[in-house]
Amino acid sequence: MFRANESYLKLPGDYLFSEIAARIQAYGQRNPDKAERIVRLGIGDVTLPLAPSIVAALHGAVDEMAAAESFHGYAPDLGYDFLREAIAEADFAARGARIDSDEVFVSDGAKSDCANIQEIFSADARIAVCDPVYPVYVDSNVMAGRTGAYCTVTGLWSDVVYMPCTADNGFAPELPDADARVSLIYLCFPNNPTGATVTKRQLQAWVDYANEHGAVIVYDAAYEAYISDPELPHSIYECDGARTCAIEIRSFSKNAGFTGTRLGYTVVPRDLRDADGVSMRDLWARRHGTKFNGAPYIVQRAGQAVYSDQGRRETCEQVAYYMGNARIIREGLAQAGYEVFGGVNAPYLWLAVPDGMTSWQFFDTLLESVQVVGTPGAGFGPSGEGYLRLTAFGSRDSALEAVKRIQSM
Amino acid sequence: MFRANESYLKLPGDYLFSEIAARIQAYGQRNPDKAERIVRLGIGDVTLPLAPSIVAALHGAVDEMAAAESFHGYAPDLGYDFLREAIAEADFAARGARIDSDEVFVSDGAKSDCANIQEIFSADARIAVCDPVYPVYVDSNVMAGRTGAYCTVTGLWSDVVYMPCTADNGFAPELPDADARVSLIYLCFPNNPTGATVTKRQLQAWVDYANEHGAVIVYDAAYEAYISDPELPHSIYECDGARTCAIEIRSFSKNAGFTGTRLGYTVVPRDLRDADGVSMRDLWARRHGTKFNGAPYIVQRAGQAVYSDQGRRETCEQVAYYMGNARIIREGLAQAGYEVFGGVNAPYLWLAVPDGMTSWQFFDTLLESVQVVGTPGAGFGPSGEGYLRLTAFGSRDSALEAVKRIQSM
Repeated sequence: MFRANESYLKLPGDYLFSEIAARIQAYGQRNPDKAERIVRLGIGDVTLPLAPSIVAALHGAVDEMAAAESFHGYAPDLGYDFLREAIAEADFAARGARIDSDEVFVSDGAKSDCANIQEIFSADARIAVCDPVYPVYVDSNVMAGRTGAYCTVTGLWSDVVYMPCTADNGFAPELPDADARVSLIYLCFPNNPTGATVTKRQLQAWVDYANEHGAVIVYDAAYEAYISDPELPHSIYECDGARTCAIEIRSFSKNAGFTGTRLGYTVVPRDLRDADGVSMRDLWARRHGTKFNGAPYIVQRAGQAVYSDQGRRETCEQVAYYMGNARIIREGLAQAGYEVFGGVNAPYLWLAVPDGMTSWQFFDTLLESVQVVGTPGAGFGPSGEGYLRLTAFGSRDSALEAVKRIQSM
Repeated sequence: MFRANESYLKLPGDYLFSEIAARIQAYGQRNPDKAERIVRLGIGDVTLPLAPSIVAALHGAVDEMAAAESFHGYAPDLGYDFLREAIAEADFAARGARIDSDEVFVSDGAKSDCANIQEIFSADARIAVCDPVYPVYVDSNVMAGRTGAYCTVTGLWSDVVYMPCTADNGFAPELPDADARVSLIYLCFPNNPTGATVTKRQLQAWVDYANEHGAVIVYDAAYEAYISDPELPHSIYECDGARTCAIEIRSFSKNAGFTGTRLGYTVVPRDLRDADGVSMRDLWARRHGTKFNGAPYIVQRAGQAVYSDQGRRETCEQVAYYMGNARIIREGLAQAGYEVFGGVNAPYLWLAVPDGMTSWQFFDTLLESVQVVGTPGAGFGPSGEGYLRLTAFGSRDSALEAVKRIQSM
C-alpha cells in the first residue's frame, strides 16, 4: 500500500505561525470581548495599502487582460523581460554588482524560493543555519530528508550545523569549522528574526569562506529595503567573488507591501557551478520550467511599477513609516526597562523577555494581560529562547498602543 | 565541494515546450518574413481575453488593496474561505460529490500542484502514467529520484509503469497488473494530449482498482469544463469510494482563461490515509504552510467571480467558442484525409501524422511549409510517436487559417 513521505513525518509540531494563529484564535474564543483589542506585532505582515503607482499598474494590466489584442497567457518561464531587466538594473547594476537579467528568476514569492532552492542540491548536502532562524530553511530540508534525527530536548537536528546568534556574539554568526564540511549556508541580512545586520566586510568573509570551502551561500535579502546605513550591503553580489558561491533571494513583500500580492525573485549566477561544472543556474531554470508556470502578468506589471520613479518614492515612504514604528517600539520598550535589539536598518525588534520566563510564557502573558501579540523566539530555534520578536509592520497607532500597554504592565 | 541533485541530471533534453519555443524562434530568425504568418496550435494557451465579470472582480479587488481598511496581506495558507466554499459547492456538492471546503487547497496553478503532489509520498513509491502523457507527472518524479534509469532508445524509465494509449485500445489505458505494485497512478481526463475521455463506469473501475490495491489516483481534471456529454464524470469524486484513494487537481486556466493569471486547486480528502493511517490531507497542508504563501488576493477574488452567475455564463461562452474551433479543425482535417482523434468533450485534437514521418518531422514540415505549429506526439512519450497534438485555444481565424493551409499541402 502507498506510504507517506517519512521525512515529512519527522517534522515536530506545526509551522510556527500556524501555532500562533491557533493560540490567538483560542484566546479570542475564550475572551470574545477582548478579541478586538488584540494588537498584532507577531507575523511580519504589512498593513499599509499598495502605493498609488502600483495600484495604477495593476488596473492598467487588468485592462490589458480584458482585450484580446493585449491579453497575456502563459508568461515566459523565468519572468517577463521588462521586470527582469528592471531588477538587474536597479537592484544590482546600480550598486556595482554584475547580474544579468537572465540570471534573475521571477517567482510567486521569497518563501517559495527559500523552500525550493534546496532541491537543486544533492541529497547529502549538509546545511548550516543561524540559530535562531526563519523556520522555512530548516523545514524544507527536513522534508527533503537532509537533516537527520530531531532531538526533542535540544530542538536541534543531528545533521544540521547551527550557528548560534546571541547577545554574546552580537547576533553575528561565526564561520563554521572547516571540518563541518557544509555545502549550503543560509544567511539572512537584515536578519529575521533578530534584526541584526552585516557589514560589507563581514559579508566578504562569508563569501571568501564559501569559495574556499566549496560551499554555496543562500542569501535571503528580503529586508534590504530597510537598510539606511551606507556601510551595509544590500546585495551579496556587492562582495568580490560572490558570483561563484552565492544565490540571492529577494521579495516584494516588505519593500512594497506585496505580502498578499505575491512576487519575489531569485538570482542564480551563471558562474555558480558544482564540482563537476554543472550550472546551478540551468538546474534552477529547469525546475522553474517543470514545476512552476510563472507569476501572474498583472503582478509582474505591479512589480515593474515598484522600480518607477513614483514607485520608488512611494515605497520609500512606506519603509520610512514602518521604521518610524520600529523607533517608537524600540525607544518605548527601552524606557520601560526592556533590553531591545534590532529595529535599526531592519523592521524586526528582538526583545529580551523578563527573567524566569520562557518566550512562549511571555507570549501568553502579553496576549492574556495586554492583548499584544509577538512571536516567541524559541519558535525560531533554541538560541531564540529568552526573546520575543516584534515587527514594525503594523499601523502607527498599533505601535503606540502596544508600547503604552507594555509600559503599563 | 557542493554537488547538484543528481536526479536532475538524469532528465533528458529540455522541457518539451521550451524545445518547441526554441525551434519556432530559430525558424523565425532564419525566415523573418514568415515569422508573422505562424499559426500556433502547439502549446495549450488560451487567447480570449478575461471575461467582463472576472475583469470587474480584479478591478474591485485592486481597489480594496489600495485602501488600508480593505487591504489584504498574507492569505490564509490554504486559500480564502470565500473561494474554497464556492469551489466545494459548485464543483462538488452540485454534482453529488461530498468534498468539504477544508479539503480544497487553492494554489497558483495546476502545473505546480501536479509537480509538487508527489512530494508527500514515500521516496520508493512506484508511479504509473499513461503513454503519451503530460511531461510534468514524470519529470517531477525523475527530479525526486523515483524513476530509475532512462533508456535513450525506448525513451522510457526503468521504474515507471507505462500504460500505453493508442488507437488500438481507443486511447484508454488498461489497469496495471496487480504485481506491478503501483502506489501512484496519474490519470488525466479529458486527456492531455489525446483528447480522450472516460465514462463514469470506466473511472469507477480505476477507483475500485486503487482501493483494492492500496494505490492513490492523482486525477488531473484541468479540462473538465470541455465535457458536454452527461455520461462523462467531471470529478473523480462522482465515483463511489474515491475519497479513500483519489486526489483531484483542477485549473482555472482553460475554463476561465487564467493561464497568465494563475490559479488552481487540489482536493485531498480527509479519508485518504496511508498504511499507517497518516492523513495525506494533513501532509499536503503542511507542505502548503511551509513552501507556499497563498495565491494573490486579487486573483482569488477573480476565481470567485468565475462561480458567479455572470461568470459561469461568460466562461461557458468561451468554452463553446474554443469547442467551435475544435470542430472546425477536426472536420477540416478529416476532409483533407487525416485521421483525427479527440476534439469532442476535450480541447485537444490528436492527429495521426502521414505515413513514414516521425512526429518531430511532421512538426518541422508544418512549420516550414505552412507555418502551422503543433506539438509532436513523441514529446509526450513513445506511444505518442506518429501523432501531433493540436489545440482549440486559438482564435476562430487561426483555426480556419490552419485548416485551410494544411488542406492546401
